[in-house]
Amino acid sequence: MDTKKDVAEQNLITRILEAVGSDLLRSEQIYAEELKTDQPVIRDIYAHVSKFRGKRIRPTLLLLTADACGGVNANHQILAAVVEMIHTATLVHDDVLDDANTRRHVATVNSRWNTETSVLFGDYLFTHSFHLASSLESTYACRKIGHSTNIVCEGELTQISERGNLDLTEERYFEIINGKTAELCAVSCQLGAYYAECSEEEVAALEQFGRDLGCAFQIADDILDIMGEETQAGKSLGSDFYKQKMTLPLIRLLQLAEPGDAEIIRGLLATPSEENWRKLTPYLNEYRAIDSARQTASDYATSARANLAKLPQSDSRTILEELTDFAIQRSH
Amino acid sequence: MDTKKDVAEQNLITRILEAVGSDLLRSEQIYAEELKTDQPVIRDIYAHVSKFRGKRIRPTLLLLTADACGGVNANHQILAAVVEMIHTATLVHDDVLDDANTRRHVATVNSRWNTETSVLFGDYLFTHSFHLASSLESTYACRKIGHSTNIVCEGELTQISERGNLDLTEERYFEIINGKTAELCAVSCQLGAYYAECSEEEVAALEQFGRDLGCAFQIADDILDIMGEETQAGKSLGSDFYKQKMTLPLIRLLQLAEPGDAEIIRGLLATPSEENWRKLTPYLNEYRAIDSARQTASDYATSARANLAKLPQSDSRTILEELTDFAIQRSH
Repeated sequence: MDTKKDVAEQNLITRILEAVGSDLLRSEQIYAEELKTDQPVIRDIYAHVSKFRGKRIRPTLLLLTADACGGVNANHQILAAVVEMIHTATLVHDDVLDDANTRRHVATVNSRWNTETSVLFGDYLFTHSFHLASSLESTYACRKIGHSTNIVCEGELTQISERGNLDLTEERYFEIINGKTAELCAVSCQLGAYYAECSEEEVAALEQFGRDLGCAFQIADDILDIMGEETQAGKSLGSDFYKQKMTLPLIRLLQLAEPGDAEIIRGLLATPSEENWRKLTPYLNEYRAIDSARQTASDYATSARANLAKLPQSDSRTILEELTDFAIQRSH
Repeated sequence: MDTKKDVAEQNLITRILEAVGSDLLRSEQIYAEELKTDQPVIRDIYAHVSKFRGKRIRPTLLLLTADACGGVNANHQILAAVVEMIHTATLVHDDVLDDANTRRHVATVNSRWNTETSVLFGDYLFTHSFHLASSLESTYACRKIGHSTNIVCEGELTQISERGNLDLTEERYFEIINGKTAELCAVSCQLGAYYAECSEEEVAALEQFGRDLGCAFQIADDILDIMGEETQAGKSLGSDFYKQKMTLPLIRLLQLAEPGDAEIIRGLLATPSEENWRKLTPYLNEYRAIDSARQTASDYATSARANLAKLPQSDSRTILEELTDFAIQRSH
């Protein structure tokens, strides 16, 4: 703690709260109101899940985009709650999929209660998010959010079906991360701009900003899964390796390695074990596979920033620009 | 096969198809179009899940109600696909919860693929159903369906949390079946009437019809779980007993039994085994617990029918009336 990186992050958070803090607070209230219930057991699970809610990246993106595009209104506050609720639903179901015991150092729903409860509580969050989205006047947000969550699920299903496929192409990898991560960031920014009554062109640019930023974030996450920051991420290292999920650093490693080494690396990836995880590290260093993936994340961050060029200058625009740096700095 | 009951059922199905067969067909096409995808793995799962789609009760209710209330239109055809998709999503997730290997004699998604795929494919069906609902002009259907699915999930979460509670009250039992079964039948009839431009009063009566019919169906199902028809239901007997789910016949048994017998019955329910399942049967007969539950199902069917009284005479109205008999006859 208290490193230069932490100070920069804290500083960024302070400025986010200055820009859209009251809107974030209002969206948290809307979130809580939507999930009010008479059933004590559901109240308990909700209270528990609240403990592992994280950085609120998606509602923050939605509100900052709205602010940068002309101003936050009541629709934005509702939609910020909607995208956060969808994200939480996917986290609850991810923990079932991964059979995870902890998330952000808190017991997951499936370990604290059971798998059944996790599946149903994830469903409960999904249906409430759609119910909340339908409180807006038109069906526009429902349509957009429905379409995005379709793509999120498709991305996750594709990821599962490709597990263990060492020949996963980069194209396919980007299809997967576009679905499982970038899509919800894209629609958050898109809705932020749309409900601030931007031009069609601006709405499209902000959607692309969110998509590129989401890809940069996910590549950085995939690098962190290999490189470290165990305490910060609250996850174990090499989890993608153990689950035989081919991520960009591993795909690049196979591309960059000499044929003989590539053969050995494939052998290590095909039979995950602690010993093989240790044996993989020197190859990652030798072929600079992490640097190669990091360069791609950086390209996405640059591309994201370019989409903000036509927005008027504002604190929120500056913060959005800095978020693109933040996305990739985590992996340095 | 070819019993009197089967002939009556076949006759009812023929008349349903005469009344709303072309609309059912159109709604099946809409269902399939919504789930079109480029991803081969998702196509495979979809094709597989289609095999265990059942009686299509909810879309049939929606379309018959619409027809009885003035006529089926394009909105109804879309909404029929929506309610069936939601129902299928809950079935896919139920199979995860029950760790079931077969449904309607077909391997479940979790046994054919894996739990991860089941969870995600259920999510995929949920989000597509909301996406499809948002293709209507107003947010009305999204709001109604969002609200109903909230209640469905709440009912299922409550059921899980009450598993093993031998003191489950009738009130609580009805709360559970209202959520997990009756709510989706109620909203199907409600939307059928609403989009046929009925009066508010008629819309409310049809909603109540669906709710009462759903309760009658669920009580009959709970009786069948104890009584039989293994081949028809494609389920094993006593599954509620083994899972320690207190259903109406079991609740009634504890109410009706002499104190001494009630104590013994509680012991059997508390430690489910094949032997204890066999020991339970004479008590069910002695105290006529099944008859008692059947009477309640019959009361719900009568109450359902009363809600149709103000509709003009039509084939569809007659079929809806007969469905109330069909709901309970299955348990005789």
